[in-house]
Amino acid sequence: MSDTIAFQDIRSLKALMDAGEITPGELVAMFAGRISRYNGVSRAFITVTEDAAAAEAASLSREDLAKSPIAGIPYACKDLFDVKDVLTTAGSRVFHDRIAAEDAYAVACLRNAGALNLGKTNLHEFAYGATGENEVYGTCVNAYDTTRLAGGSSSGSAAAIAFGLVPAALGTDTGGSVRAPAVLNGLVGLKPTIGRVPTSGIVPYCWTLDHVGLMTRTIADCADILGLVAGHDPQDPASVNLPGENYPEALGQDISGLRIGIPANFFFERSDPEILETLERVKAFLVAQGAELVPITFPDMEHTRTVSLTVQLPEALSAHSAHLQERGELYGKDFRAGLALGQCLLAEHYVKAKRFIERYRQQTTALFDDVDLILTPATPEIAQKIGTVMVTRDGVDEAIGNAITRFTTFFNMTGHPALTMPCGLHSEGLPIGLQLVGRYFDEKSLFRVAHVIEQHDAFSIPLPKVDS
Amino acid sequence: MSDTIAFQDIRSLKALMDAGEITPGELVAMFAGRISRYNGVSRAFITVTEDAAAAEAASLSREDLAKSPIAGIPYACKDLFDVKDVLTTAGSRVFHDRIAAEDAYAVACLRNAGALNLGKTNLHEFAYGATGENEVYGTCVNAYDTTRLAGGSSSGSAAAIAFGLVPAALGTDTGGSVRAPAVLNGLVGLKPTIGRVPTSGIVPYCWTLDHVGLMTRTIADCADILGLVAGHDPQDPASVNLPGENYPEALGQDISGLRIGIPANFFFERSDPEILETLERVKAFLVAQGAELVPITFPDMEHTRTVSLTVQLPEALSAHSAHLQERGELYGKDFRAGLALGQCLLAEHYVKAKRFIERYRQQTTALFDDVDLILTPATPEIAQKIGTVMVTRDGVDEAIGNAITRFTTFFNMTGHPALTMPCGLHSEGLPIGLQLVGRYFDEKSLFRVAHVIEQHDAFSIPLPKVDS
Repeated sequence: MSDTIAFQDIRSLKALMDAGEITPGELVAMFAGRISRYNGVSRAFITVTEDAAAAEAASLSREDLAKSPIAGIPYACKDLFDVKDVLTTAGSRVFHDRIAAEDAYAVACLRNAGALNLGKTNLHEFAYGATGENEVYGTCVNAYDTTRLAGGSSSGSAAAIAFGLVPAALGTDTGGSVRAPAVLNGLVGLKPTIGRVPTSGIVPYCWTLDHVGLMTRTIADCADILGLVAGHDPQDPASVNLPGENYPEALGQDISGLRIGIPANFFFERSDPEILETLERVKAFLVAQGAELVPITFPDMEHTRTVSLTVQLPEALSAHSAHLQERGELYGKDFRAGLALGQCLLAEHYVKAKRFIERYRQQTTALFDDVDLILTPATPEIAQKIGTVMVTRDGVDEAIGNAITRFTTFFNMTGHPALTMPCGLHSEGLPIGLQLVGRYFDEKSLFRVAHVIEQHDAFSIPLPKVDS
Repeated sequence: MSDTIAFQDIRSLKALMDAGEITPGELVAMFAGRISRYNGVSRAFITVTEDAAAAEAASLSREDLAKSPIAGIPYACKDLFDVKDVLTTAGSRVFHDRIAAEDAYAVACLRNAGALNLGKTNLHEFAYGATGENEVYGTCVNAYDTTRLAGGSSSGSAAAIAFGLVPAALGTDTGGSVRAPAVLNGLVGLKPTIGRVPTSGIVPYCWTLDHVGLMTRTIADCADILGLVAGHDPQDPASVNLPGENYPEALGQDISGLRIGIPANFFFERSDPEILETLERVKAFLVAQGAELVPITFPDMEHTRTVSLTVQLPEALSAHSAHLQERGELYGKDFRAGLALGQCLLAEHYVKAKRFIERYRQQTTALFDDVDLILTPATPEIAQKIGTVMVTRDGVDEAIGNAITRFTTFFNMTGHPALTMPCGLHSEGLPIGLQLVGRYFDEKSLFRVAHVIEQHDAFSIPLPKVDS
């Protein structure tokens, strides 16, 4: 079987499978072969579970293959998700011996749906960082330019798809850790509404802000997978018990009459001009499709990054304090520095940060009285060179992690669903992306608009030239 | 009009009103007269709003009086609740000039229902303390023995009813601040499920644990009022949007087949033997009524008080930091000491405490797989002498505030609904009480069992001899 199908989306692979042209076992072998070939460069995978995936592929009956849109399809998950009997490293030496006893909730959902877990993907240690640099497992590179970062923290999930090693992957998103690497690698990234997908069975980083996220090639694949992993798990009391939804029914609907909010104040200064220009073209297209652009103003955004960190670090510290005592010397320097900072924060600071978050939630929810969606760029910069510490634009320096997540991190605090997708190629050959944000539990509107954009050729981008 | 009706419950007063024997205006005048007479002793009220109540009474039409079970009836609220155009002191010099612009949610509900707010009741400063001692507004005394404490922090709400100054009152309950003073004064106290009654418009103490609570003479009055104040308010995102319930329909139902959990490990050691004996009689009665007693074991309870305080103090500090800077010298010593302690707590401690609370919620919820309700004493001791600092029992000292709330504070953390009621008179002439705890949002089962107990003469207690 040729590798030419390695860059196809899930629906296309399923169609080939239904037509009898490929089998799940062949897919596993093909993708596993590509992992052998490309993992040295991409650093996408920490653990590959080809044997388990092949065994599951062999066990699938014809009925099994019909039971879900992903049955028989290999996928990967960030190495924070527990997969039964497999190591969960969290990208850290600290967990070098942590074999999972059970599947994470989302992994179990996909297993029940017949999906084939092909392995665990690389990440910024314990998801703390947006560049995807990792001292232990190497730094994931961008498939469009291997001298550039994949972005993070779900770096390996993005690289795995971009290099054609799986057609879809799970990640986690605490400040943009799915959405940012997805678009930096030309993929679709979704952070569903907070509580939509249980986080049980995932190594926690910051339970106030942690979300399960999805990365796919297409909006349709994303909608299909969300339908499989959304749900309620008593193990995660923050997960919401709502009836299942038919997300794909949003695909193909027109968008005339939709009111799309365009923020006046959302840190747009100091962005790559090509990104802002591309967004203008998207806006013009949406208007041509009948949508209405509505200027909106976010409330005071001055402290958002401080607020996010003030919640993240003590929660991370709380989750790690036992490990710190037992095996503190195994932590990498980035994360250990964050934990040390967390140790200086007073309870009063944390409590105030939580109050800020509550206010952000209320104020952002109020914006949706006027609009159905909000549109922003996905990132202010394209993927940067490996080793970049500061991004300098208009003479102002910004730490690279802050730049990568500048437009995404706010919506982890508010909990609204947010989707990123590519919408153009930068003159330097790297993907440019946009972000759509919706009302609580209205992922359908995201899919509806995103699908209209995706179907418009002017916004499609070429695949990376991995195999050439 | 004679004062003999001053100790009647709301339903009785409404019957007299419906029969044309009393008018709302006469009730206001009668209760206001009693406040003039007894406030010097009881210290129940900080602010009396007789004129406003009389004006509202005069404005009520016959239709208005028919619109709710509390229409035309005076009531009081703890001086943490905002009442439009009235001072909210929170029992503190710090708020000596804080005139409310709007009604608190619960106050607005009762105003819409035609209830007449007769004033604002005394409390432990900012609700921080369970004895009801107050440097500024005096210490509320117990109507059964004026040398003893009313308990707190909703001390004035309890004293106001016990002295026959109103038939019902609102309070707040963060660790037992409604339930404990209610039973210490021979009254019914309810802390509904967390989120059942919005806390908007109430001076916050600790939003993780703060609940609106109700104090009444009877279970029926309590059920009637809960139906009026339960609801959702967007201003309080923690309040839950549920359909209205007919709570009084639980009254008069038998309890045969109900499974009532009797905790094996709930700090019962070192309780007043008469309280434990009374509880045994209640248990025997419940069995005779067809209920089944089921032994249950709470999970590890060792850290519960530490956990509660570790959440309370930073949240209080966060709410007060601006005032501390502007007018710190106006704080009383109890509360200032608490805030100072709060300043020493690290974010990590707070986060861990919140994790404990989450575990308590899950573990306690799991207990309700086996039982419909849980029964405990309301307090381990009867009302103590004013000035008591430590309660000594079996040679062990316990800070009085900890003793008063020993059985109640846990359920503020879990959020389960809990009701206290008198069930006997101690040989020293003070009320003894019990506590019933139910499943989330199952206040009805509390009312059902409490009503059966209330209707049994052996558990009724005499009124305090206030007027003799």
